Amino acid sequence: MVTVSFPDSSWLEDVGPIEGVTPVVWDPQAGPPAEDVEIFIAPYMAAPQQISVVADQPSVRLVQLLSAGFDAALPVLPEGVSLANAKGVHDAATAELAVALVLASQRGFDEFARAQAKGEWLPRHFRRGLADQRVLLLGYGSVGRAIAERLAPFEVSLTAVASRARDGDDLVEHVHGIDELADLLPEHDIVISVLPGSDSTTGILDHAVLAALPDGGLVVNVGRGNALVTEDALKHTGRLRFALDVTDPEPLPADHPLWSEPGVIISPHTGGVTEAFRPRMLALLREQLRRVAVGEEPLHVVAPR
Amino acid sequence: MVTVSFPDSSWLEDVGPIEGVTPVVWDPQAGPPAEDVEIFIAPYMAAPQQISVVADQPSVRLVQLLSAGFDAALPVLPEGVSLANAKGVHDAATAELAVALVLASQRGFDEFARAQAKGEWLPRHFRRGLADQRVLLLGYGSVGRAIAERLAPFEVSLTAVASRARDGDDLVEHVHGIDELADLLPEHDIVISVLPGSDSTTGILDHAVLAALPDGGLVVNVGRGNALVTEDALKHTGRLRFALDVTDPEPLPADHPLWSEPGVIISPHTGGVTEAFRPRMLALLREQLRRVAVGEEPLHVVAPR
Repeated sequence: MVTVSFPDSSWLEDVGPIEGVTPVVWDPQAGPPAEDVEIFIAPYMAAPQQISVVADQPSVRLVQLLSAGFDAALPVLPEGVSLANAKGVHDAATAELAVALVLASQRGFDEFARAQAKGEWLPRHFRRGLADQRVLLLGYGSVGRAIAERLAPFEVSLTAVASRARDGDDLVEHVHGIDELADLLPEHDIVISVLPGSDSTTGILDHAVLAALPDGGLVVNVGRGNALVTEDALKHTGRLRFALDVTDPEPLPADHPLWSEPGVIISPHTGGVTEAFRPRMLALLREQLRRVAVGEEPLHVVAPR
Repeated sequence: MVTVSFPDSSWLEDVGPIEGVTPVVWDPQAGPPAEDVEIFIAPYMAAPQQISVVADQPSVRLVQLLSAGFDAALPVLPEGVSLANAKGVHDAATAELAVALVLASQRGFDEFARAQAKGEWLPRHFRRGLADQRVLLLGYGSVGRAIAERLAPFEVSLTAVASRARDGDDLVEHVHGIDELADLLPEHDIVISVLPGSDSTTGILDHAVLAALPDGGLVVNVGRGNALVTEDALKHTGRLRFALDVTDPEPLPADHPLWSEPGVIISPHTGGVTEAFRPRMLALLREQLRRVAVGEEPLHVVAPR
């Protein structure tokens, strides 16, 4: 039997019984667990101090996150403990938010919202729309692909860029390497960043990159806020548009200039935050626990011990 | 040779020369044409009095509209003149607007816009999102199908309803008849109306229909404003959400209560109004004029003489 801790009883009950698994509840904020836990399911959006507690529980060998992002958990992970993320469970929600941000900006929903607050019916004005636009996906893992799947029927052209060049798939002919980004940007209208947090992605969308985008272009960020250099973005508002679910700093302070710049749409880091999360997370946990119970390799291990 | 009038020289030039066609410019607001026009291309969003002028030009045998909607042109069409609409040219833009309205409402963009105006980063809150939602398309012509194509990758279920039941296609198993609407509604979260203007569609979304939708449901209208009974919609705000590109009355007066009801998003009849329109309209005009020049049946004749 493998002892698995759930952050609360609702997760335990909703996952349901799994052969070979002894389920317990351990909320790190409520003190140490009553039993020796081997698999620790961290609370949703766990703070680092809710994960570092496993250092005092030598029986723990795997930390399972309830999110795809794992950059905050890595520094506090004790030696010898593996980390698995929830790759894929936010894909549908994050991808639909990326498309929502693109459409809201291309179709002028920010202007419509301001007009609605004043009871003003705006005059007819031809906007770019999404059809015929050239979209560059910066990051082409599972979220990037989920965005591509959703954008494909909108009569757009799609270009994928990842850390290294590789063969394409049924959605893009070829995946370009990040070293080609500067050459690709002038030929694109919309850039969607889904880059995860890491040293190599911090500040990647800087002044030089933004300057390479044609006038009227749109930058969408649903990855990590610090991929976009905020002060550089502020130099390009007016010429470019921005639709950001993540920002740097985050949360954005009330007096931050980004809130009120023209052509800027901000959603408060809600990429994966929909009711689609829980059924997908439950399905992943069931499969993950079935695997560990029978001694198979766990899925989505991002930091092996 | 067939004499074809264009509403201005830019349309004439952008369509370019077509064998067998003598192109002329006729702007009805500038007086009668200098030549006998056979095919009259009406101005974009022509008022009825810009179409009724053909009654004084007995050589005109076909009026070509630059829009899909034709209900305003029908009553002023002289006896013996055919009417062709621009079926299909707005499909991409209208379908993407429908998806934009759905996503904006499901993901809370109305709340985000109000928060952004105040510099407020809203706390995390699980919203419905679009994945797993049950979507009913009310109207399944070319726009309805274009919406279905775009929604299909969003992990939704799709139900199509048209005036008469018929076999489905690659997107929906079956097209339901309008007489089944009341039975279908309780099992759906989102209703998207793309119904054109006609006697049979006026007021179809009334109190009884709205009452059949489950709590938290969303009604989107990108067809004709009068398909939704506005005063009945006002009775359901709070319980249902509405995302409307068309309204009754239209434009909505500044003091209309719909502007400020909770969960109501309004865009000012911008369904087809994007830069996608012109290249698609030009392609249709070239094909249409090629056909009439060689004596083939014109496309999209909605009122034969």
